[in-house]
Amino acid sequence: MAKPGKPVLYSYFRSSCSWRVRIALALKGIDYDTAPVNLIKDGGQQFSDEFQALNPMKQVPALKIDGMTIGQSLAIIEYLEETRPTPRLLPQDPKKRALVRMISDLIAGGIQPLQNLSVLRQVEEQQRLAWAQKAISSGFNALEAILRGTAGKYCVGDEVTMADLCLVPQVANADSPVMKPHALPQDGHRWADRLSHRRVSIALLSAGVAGGREAEDSAPEPPLPPRLASCALCPLPSQPPHPPQLRA
Amino acid sequence: MAKPGKPVLYSYFRSSCSWRVRIALALKGIDYDTAPVNLIKDGGQQFSDEFQALNPMKQVPALKIDGMTIGQSLAIIEYLEETRPTPRLLPQDPKKRALVRMISDLIAGGIQPLQNLSVLRQVEEQQRLAWAQKAISSGFNALEAILRGTAGKYCVGDEVTMADLCLVPQVANADSPVMKPHALPQDGHRWADRLSHRRVSIALLSAGVAGGREAEDSAPEPPLPPRLASCALCPLPSQPPHPPQLRA
Repeated sequence: MAKPGKPVLYSYFRSSCSWRVRIALALKGIDYDTAPVNLIKDGGQQFSDEFQALNPMKQVPALKIDGMTIGQSLAIIEYLEETRPTPRLLPQDPKKRALVRMISDLIAGGIQPLQNLSVLRQVEEQQRLAWAQKAISSGFNALEAILRGTAGKYCVGDEVTMADLCLVPQVANADSPVMKPHALPQDGHRWADRLSHRRVSIALLSAGVAGGREAEDSAPEPPLPPRLASCALCPLPSQPPHPPQLRA
Repeated sequence: MAKPGKPVLYSYFRSSCSWRVRIALALKGIDYDTAPVNLIKDGGQQFSDEFQALNPMKQVPALKIDGMTIGQSLAIIEYLEETRPTPRLLPQDPKKRALVRMISDLIAGGIQPLQNLSVLRQVEEQQRLAWAQKAISSGFNALEAILRGTAGKYCVGDEVTMADLCLVPQVANADSPVMKPHALPQDGHRWADRLSHRRVSIALLSAGVAGGREAEDSAPEPPLPPRLASCALCPLPSQPPHPPQLRA
């Protein structure tokens, strides 16, 4: 049971959009309860009357907080930023904020919606892989060109921002054993690869945000993609262990 | 030729995402030049090297402003809001801002990307209409439930916000002669219908924002959908004439 007043995150451990919000909550040190919504079990728990009443979009994440329920991951993160500003996830400079939002929107509106479960279900089975690869590949090609101009240690400059919260789960999707190597070729995507797999992952892992796996879910954990264990592109010598939850 | 310092909007008159930004620029009274990017002519002008160098996402809109180029319509609108705050397009109350962003993200990330030209081209021709109708219909079903709780005169309360800037072009897409009546049934979507077609349209038309049609484009103008000429749901007695540009 959620304590009164404690935020409740409706989340699925494999949902990259939920993962963005889990990172934000963790980095800002916000204590919350998780209400798991399994997008596969029972024909999809997001379609239950109970959940639809809460979030008509029938999607995770949704965050119950401060007496309201907010859907859409970026809207949630912006709300957290405005009401719990420390540490900040948007830079102070409006131009840098624009870059952060551009990258976030590119991932959240231009890549993820085209390769998520509900869309792939509408594509003929033989075409699904090619469809998802195309969405991911063309999105990452654009991202590469942008990151080349914006990145420092992180996507925009040297601070972790909302853009990194979007990039990390999206690279994990692109880097799944099924998608690889077509969606994220070895010879490209150096920025996304470096930023996500090392610098950002390390920051986020050390903030303890790779967790959040819902207890109820009993799906077998897929093996870690090899790239997470060894990355030829990245010069960083050491790497913390990647818990299985990193694949969420 | 753009004057130095004057913002340049890379835009296509049929692009609903460009339309959102045209409304924002008009409401804020920002003088700008339009650089038309025809998504159909010449195999798609967004694929030219020149445009890709400017916007690796190969999408409109993109706004050249204050020495930078911003892509993604909502990132552009947020930047305009932070640097040209009058009149505001986000409410002052953080909770209302969250609702505005949730609705905006639902449209910009949950409906539009699934029914735009580049995605429909990947769907087999016989399936395209059904695909687009499904995306629009399920999105508007969610929107209806949300607007019922948030709307006053406009999507959130009684002020025009970014959410309205997203709703108006999306309803125009849903209301095209091809999509109708399947995507936006007569017996539903009362809120979206009312808000978009009358209250918001009137406000936005009177702000002179229905224009913006790029001079270069010579595609024949489709006929206005009948609903724009007469709307049974709406009690407002008078209606300004709809110029052809309303279909942009």
